[in-house]
Amino acid sequence: MANEAKDMKRRDLLKMIGATAGGFALYNSMMAFGMLNKSDFNGAPNLTNAPKGSTVLILGAGLAGLVAAYELKKAGYKVKILDFNDRVGGRAWSLRGGDEYTELGGYTQKCEFAEGQYLNPGPWRIPYHHQGYLHYAREFGVQMQPFQQVNQNAYLHNSNAFGGKPQRYREIFSDFRGHTNELLAKSINQNNLDDSITKENKEMLLEALKEWGALDKNYRYTGETGSHYRGWATPAGATHDAIPSTPLNFDDVLSSNLWSALNMHFNIEYASTMFQPVGGMDQLPKAIAKDLMSDIQLSSKVIEINQDDKGVKVTYVDMADGDKEKVETAEWCVCTIPFSVLAQIKNNLSRKVKDGIAAVHYATSFKAGVQFKRRFWEEDEQIYGGITFTDLDIGQISYPSDQYFSKGPGVVLAAYQFGINSFDFSARTPENRLAKVMDDFVKIHPQAKEEFDNGISVAWHRNPGTLGCYGLWTDTTREKHFKDVSTMDNRVVLAGEHVSYIPAWQEGAILSSLEAIRQLNDRASKK
Amino acid sequence: MANEAKDMKRRDLLKMIGATAGGFALYNSMMAFGMLNKSDFNGAPNLTNAPKGSTVLILGAGLAGLVAAYELKKAGYKVKILDFNDRVGGRAWSLRGGDEYTELGGYTQKCEFAEGQYLNPGPWRIPYHHQGYLHYAREFGVQMQPFQQVNQNAYLHNSNAFGGKPQRYREIFSDFRGHTNELLAKSINQNNLDDSITKENKEMLLEALKEWGALDKNYRYTGETGSHYRGWATPAGATHDAIPSTPLNFDDVLSSNLWSALNMHFNIEYASTMFQPVGGMDQLPKAIAKDLMSDIQLSSKVIEINQDDKGVKVTYVDMADGDKEKVETAEWCVCTIPFSVLAQIKNNLSRKVKDGIAAVHYATSFKAGVQFKRRFWEEDEQIYGGITFTDLDIGQISYPSDQYFSKGPGVVLAAYQFGINSFDFSARTPENRLAKVMDDFVKIHPQAKEEFDNGISVAWHRNPGTLGCYGLWTDTTREKHFKDVSTMDNRVVLAGEHVSYIPAWQEGAILSSLEAIRQLNDRASKK
Repeated sequence: MANEAKDMKRRDLLKMIGATAGGFALYNSMMAFGMLNKSDFNGAPNLTNAPKGSTVLILGAGLAGLVAAYELKKAGYKVKILDFNDRVGGRAWSLRGGDEYTELGGYTQKCEFAEGQYLNPGPWRIPYHHQGYLHYAREFGVQMQPFQQVNQNAYLHNSNAFGGKPQRYREIFSDFRGHTNELLAKSINQNNLDDSITKENKEMLLEALKEWGALDKNYRYTGETGSHYRGWATPAGATHDAIPSTPLNFDDVLSSNLWSALNMHFNIEYASTMFQPVGGMDQLPKAIAKDLMSDIQLSSKVIEINQDDKGVKVTYVDMADGDKEKVETAEWCVCTIPFSVLAQIKNNLSRKVKDGIAAVHYATSFKAGVQFKRRFWEEDEQIYGGITFTDLDIGQISYPSDQYFSKGPGVVLAAYQFGINSFDFSARTPENRLAKVMDDFVKIHPQAKEEFDNGISVAWHRNPGTLGCYGLWTDTTREKHFKDVSTMDNRVVLAGEHVSYIPAWQEGAILSSLEAIRQLNDRASKK
Repeated sequence: MANEAKDMKRRDLLKMIGATAGGFALYNSMMAFGMLNKSDFNGAPNLTNAPKGSTVLILGAGLAGLVAAYELKKAGYKVKILDFNDRVGGRAWSLRGGDEYTELGGYTQKCEFAEGQYLNPGPWRIPYHHQGYLHYAREFGVQMQPFQQVNQNAYLHNSNAFGGKPQRYREIFSDFRGHTNELLAKSINQNNLDDSITKENKEMLLEALKEWGALDKNYRYTGETGSHYRGWATPAGATHDAIPSTPLNFDDVLSSNLWSALNMHFNIEYASTMFQPVGGMDQLPKAIAKDLMSDIQLSSKVIEINQDDKGVKVTYVDMADGDKEKVETAEWCVCTIPFSVLAQIKNNLSRKVKDGIAAVHYATSFKAGVQFKRRFWEEDEQIYGGITFTDLDIGQISYPSDQYFSKGPGVVLAAYQFGINSFDFSARTPENRLAKVMDDFVKIHPQAKEEFDNGISVAWHRNPGTLGCYGLWTDTTREKHFKDVSTMDNRVVLAGEHVSYIPAWQEGAILSSLEAIRQLNDRASKK
């Protein structure tokens, strides 16, 4: 009620403004009242007071490092970036035909994808509200295309339900929804909920349940009503009408546990419209790095970070120059190295920052990309993009959101697992991993066996540059350490997804980077 | 139970096949059993026994006519197409800058869209299961891109609810779902539904409602649980966690009636993944027509159709040649002229076909496309594609599903109405229609007033080539007339969306065309 009253007041005020100043003024006022939902990105910090020519050493050429370098350089700083990999982008990475990848333990895989095919082993989708990412994509002309998160025609699969036969998302969705709405309507009609709803709303609610739940006039979920949503046994054609399908038995839907996969797509993190960069996730880092290449030194493994009151000294191994130890100095430092790696680098950061770095564990995940000779999921099964979820070890299958209907090969994300579920794969040789992936995969797409072409896999805890997938904070570690690691420590400021409240997402890396350079510039400009 | 038993048997059989012949055989068997959901498209009919050189006159160069011409010509027939318009495609049409359109009554509009912008005044989206359409798109190399049907960040709007403030789809969706699931959980916990669910399933159902409805451990829908789906008051950022939003009051959601707009996107007709041709809906007819241009005569108004035992004689007015009356003859005829127009053309079709033609009424609809100077829906409101529904006369707003994030102008479908709701617009001058459209539009997007550039509208019952939008069958007219109009009448066979069970969709036109030429070829090859 308090909110209601507040809203009423705001609306009255808006009405007044609207009446006197026209629509556009009304719009501006709505913005001011926060009634239009904005993201947490409010543009890059204002660095106009930057001490021109001051030097900043940036560790890491992932998105956090690149955004920091771009904005600092634009403001007048002199920047230098060191990165461990022989490419920019960090986890914003795409594997293409000809690429080689060597993981910890020594396995080297060569990617054999056809021209134009790729796998994003790291981040692979951009929520529409990640406006920091989308801002830079737009600024650097990186073309974005929809990432098909939800596909009602993709499968939900439980080996122990429905005889192991995959069900279409639309079937489980419609049937779960229909049966539960039928139950609720029944309860309302039996007057069981009269203490919770007014008599007036009762009729309206029943009407709404009928509409939303696809119930008939007797509030029953049937094949006739449900087929409009779950799909028909035979669709309408030139000479005949559609023939209804038969809904799944409610007990079977419940015990299948497949309902647990319905909700993810409606989570604001995955809500429509999601995006991906056309041609691979490395497009944005490559675009930002384009004018920074002379400031970036790749294949540089940082082994020591030392700061004093005058500046920062970083020792690194130049892996492109016979593993020589070299030194780089600067007045300031932005360090985006993942804590999993940073914890192992000698440094003289303050005790409390070190404690924070040590406290953050890193998640792991496993992804396998498989190229098939033809896009059988489209041609045979009418699945265009989207995700199939399964209880099999591969966890999920994601079909490509680009090159729809093309006649050539296609790369599918054939396994995506987290935590201990990923170890079953990563403990194996790359060849054995693919064999295990395909063992599962054919249970959902039998024709995949014939269509298999080649594949590649990435286990993130075996990635030498990150030793994990992303920083895993708990409520306790947040409480105890986050302020320390996100506050500039003398001349070094930390950045990256792990120094944000949006871990695992590129948006976290970007927003954390902007916050880091804001702090750095505040310090540097007061010098 | 009968179905269960049948399924069990099929599965056992499949298991046997799978065990002996491997995955691919299993897959083929699944296809044979119809367990993989296919559309009603099974390829073009086999016309190999066509009497080479036989002549077919095709009336109409829309999709039905073009597909008929393409397949018949490929089989060896000699085809000729007459079309009323000065372009191919019929209702599969795109308006671009420079185009002129004159409607019945004499109003001429000139389209002033910028280069690369267009409006599809007719069909504008392709369901993934319209495999006939997608087959020809693929065959003719027409590039397809996702059509964003559902956008959880678009609006639902009722002038009389929430003070006239548009709500985000995600808010209404989550809150309606949360509140109804809370009610159902309450009823179950009060043991009201014990006769409908087993004790064992009760726990599972409660768990499922908690997950699906975003309920807390006490089965309450709250800001903490709901914000993951409805969106946060403040999203997480670099230095702070997300702050929950407050769900709408259930009574307000119910009385807003906005729940009635939730379900459309889950209807199999609009289910993900939908598509549109890159660059406009006229791309497919243009591609099919490319090799047929010498067989197509445009600007030809048919005024009489006469058939006897030897052939068909069609009289038409050549509007490109001083309105001269001319005659075209052929052995056979495929007539795709909409019944609304055909009913007014002199013909000697049989009585029962004439009766069918007269019995089908035509729906009307109104679409207005407005070009805005910038894509404010994306820039200001984070709406990328998708549809806003409103109780205002404009009915809905659809944001473009292409050129996302571009800095130039964009064309929005600013009004889309059917039936009598479209007359309020079409009765006005084109200028007045746009004024009325904008009056409504700014109530949802106030900044549209400043950003308006130009616009164009199409009222289908004023379209001289169709006199309506699509054929409106009723159960009674279907029963009485469909067989007659869809069965070849001596030497003339009718085709088009109106001669199918998928009216209004291009898929109906294509499937009806394939059925028509199958009948024609059966007759012709027996000659």
